[in-house]
Amino acid sequence: MRKGIITLIIATLTSAAINAQESLPDAQSSAPIKTQYMKGFPPPPEKRLSAADGSFFKFPALRYSVVHMREFMPTVNVPRGNSHPPCDFRRAIDENIDTLTFRPTGATEPVTWAQSLALNYTDGMLILHRGTIVYEKYFGELTPESVHALMSVTKSFTGILASVLVAEGKLDTTKLVGEYIPQLARSGFGDATVREIMDMTTAIKYSEDYNDPNADVWKFSAAGNAMITHPEGTPQGFYDYLPTVVKEGEHGNIFGYRTANAEVLGWLVATVSGKSVATLLDELIWSKMGMEQDAYYQIDALGTPFAGGGLNASLRDLARVGEMMRRGGLWQGQQIIPRKAIEDILKGGSKEAFAASIYGKRLKGWSYRNMWWITENENGAYMARGVHGQAIYIDPAAQMVIVRLASSPHSSNLELDATSLPAYEAVSRYLLQK
Amino acid sequence: MRKGIITLIIATLTSAAINAQESLPDAQSSAPIKTQYMKGFPPPPEKRLSAADGSFFKFPALRYSVVHMREFMPTVNVPRGNSHPPCDFRRAIDENIDTLTFRPTGATEPVTWAQSLALNYTDGMLILHRGTIVYEKYFGELTPESVHALMSVTKSFTGILASVLVAEGKLDTTKLVGEYIPQLARSGFGDATVREIMDMTTAIKYSEDYNDPNADVWKFSAAGNAMITHPEGTPQGFYDYLPTVVKEGEHGNIFGYRTANAEVLGWLVATVSGKSVATLLDELIWSKMGMEQDAYYQIDALGTPFAGGGLNASLRDLARVGEMMRRGGLWQGQQIIPRKAIEDILKGGSKEAFAASIYGKRLKGWSYRNMWWITENENGAYMARGVHGQAIYIDPAAQMVIVRLASSPHSSNLELDATSLPAYEAVSRYLLQK
Repeated sequence: MRKGIITLIIATLTSAAINAQESLPDAQSSAPIKTQYMKGFPPPPEKRLSAADGSFFKFPALRYSVVHMREFMPTVNVPRGNSHPPCDFRRAIDENIDTLTFRPTGATEPVTWAQSLALNYTDGMLILHRGTIVYEKYFGELTPESVHALMSVTKSFTGILASVLVAEGKLDTTKLVGEYIPQLARSGFGDATVREIMDMTTAIKYSEDYNDPNADVWKFSAAGNAMITHPEGTPQGFYDYLPTVVKEGEHGNIFGYRTANAEVLGWLVATVSGKSVATLLDELIWSKMGMEQDAYYQIDALGTPFAGGGLNASLRDLARVGEMMRRGGLWQGQQIIPRKAIEDILKGGSKEAFAASIYGKRLKGWSYRNMWWITENENGAYMARGVHGQAIYIDPAAQMVIVRLASSPHSSNLELDATSLPAYEAVSRYLLQK
Repeated sequence: MRKGIITLIIATLTSAAINAQESLPDAQSSAPIKTQYMKGFPPPPEKRLSAADGSFFKFPALRYSVVHMREFMPTVNVPRGNSHPPCDFRRAIDENIDTLTFRPTGATEPVTWAQSLALNYTDGMLILHRGTIVYEKYFGELTPESVHALMSVTKSFTGILASVLVAEGKLDTTKLVGEYIPQLARSGFGDATVREIMDMTTAIKYSEDYNDPNADVWKFSAAGNAMITHPEGTPQGFYDYLPTVVKEGEHGNIFGYRTANAEVLGWLVATVSGKSVATLLDELIWSKMGMEQDAYYQIDALGTPFAGGGLNASLRDLARVGEMMRRGGLWQGQQIIPRKAIEDILKGGSKEAFAASIYGKRLKGWSYRNMWWITENENGAYMARGVHGQAIYIDPAAQMVIVRLASSPHSSNLELDATSLPAYEAVSRYLLQK
């Protein structure tokens, strides 16, 4: 299926054609205002969605749900705090960006930036140039005041927290997971180093193919689903599931993108700091940056924030984090997180380990470090990436931060990269000349 | 049991004695920092709480849960909005209040205001005098930045929304429920007037004795519990349950305090306005008053906000609402809700209907109007009241607003009134002389 879609993108590259061949409604006709899910008092049976039966996250329902996650499950707040008033961005909207053209990967015909947003079912797009908002648009269910599911962009936040603990000397990347978390000592993670967890080079028996209904990621996901009944003797939450994962192969050699690693990292963060990732994210970042909105995490039945994919935040607040990263941890004159923590991310991971993975063929020359995707391009760009189209793209050379929130029918970003990565590069080139 | 507790209070009036006789830990030893519920990564099995099995709301666990409701169930946000910065109160803390003494109802010995707070397992207490904070304290799990479950204080918010719609001519109090909500036409509510719903004088077969495990309120509560599986053919949410309620007697004669009425009122509000109580509360009040915190509602599996008991808000934001009510809908020069809506509440309800109820013997001379409790005392005081000790007490003569949030082991306020109503009156007398 993945290959089919890529071929399709290469062949046609128009939203209409994709939808005709896949029978998928396009961005406009799949918008929540059209589909009317969960509307009415009460909603009619055919418009009801639930996390217990998974209906809430099937396309096109997910176009509604990504902005209403807390209405489907328990969540824990990440308050913006009251100590700082929300800080405004400078704004200088650049209308030219919509008309920038680029050639999607493998395509023969160019598309405009504006067209690419619909192709990717974008809900929100914000571009910062030197800290000033030059582009900001909302589609679908998203508004400036609402928060959106970040999916695996969450991992990069867990990576930031871990990087801070490493920079502060509280988390030792050379130690073994089993030394920090006794419950994991005999699992496949037990003899992995913290570094191998952070860079996802563990060798575990765990499939994360979202197109395979029997993949381990679904068992992991079920364990963390607070909305289903967990029979006795089965995992009641993430931390009951992780100890059941076994080893397969040798750690450290191949980049293996698996959410379970991010969950182990969240557990390490909690163990070392004595605070959940939600509490620590709040203390270190959310309450200190003049955020506009509270953020929140989806939690499991044991109250554990989903460190691998459960964060929800607003478009502008994500841009604030991206900009703080770009500036080496500085935000409005204050050092939010240690420069060392960000410098460690920018070092990048093993290109060999990445090249040996299934991602290596598509994201050539990239690496992965501290739960961030490092493009290793000449601009030094790096990314946080989440399924269904979530992205924070930081381009130091172009002094640019792009945040995209989306609800594409395609889960894998590999399916969306053709119309997004070249788009980011096009804006980067444009801004570099400005 | 209720009588026993009252006798006890009369006899001894010390927290220690109450607890010795009832084997209940006192306020200090039942505090979450002592009980350690949901602490740990993951919490040990004996410290885990859940809404599916009801453990989260058993004393002393509820002392933790009242400040963490969203972590146990789906919720919908009531955003404070970004248009107004949080508005500060003037502060002039009056240390004398702690030493004010009063004689609890039926008691021979006086207690101090400060002592009464522990007796009632108070989590937060705020007193406004002429709009200035003269008292503000936090105990247990509550902080100025966190929100607390309001229980039936929620009903009074639903009452405000309905009063506004009535004042605007959108909701006709003389019309029958069945005319607005066809699904309820053949239920016990069908031939009740909107007025009878607002004043809870419907005659329905529905018991709300929280001490009776077979009471209808628990069936109602189960229908609205998003965390349990609802077998096919059983109510999937509040609006599936309400049509099953049947009539018993004649409407209009006796005050019958039943949460189901508030849920019908919420349904009426949604039907007439086209907005859920959460959305309408946000539009009319929450986004317009410079609130400090987002509020939220617990919702059922169909996304319906629990209009009878699901609101959560911060202590100070509740004080803002109380002060706005006291000033006839005015807040910082802006008319937030029509003066007419508040005047209608202040008219009070039928004293005869109230006297004929089980509340009549204890709250002598009171009435109930638009989901507010009217003391009918010489100061014109009126209240919002919620189980386990929640209260907003507005005393127009004393220019005083008291907000109390609590997590008492005793659900019924009748069990808590002995140490709270005379306390409020003592502060009122003190402030009147100031």
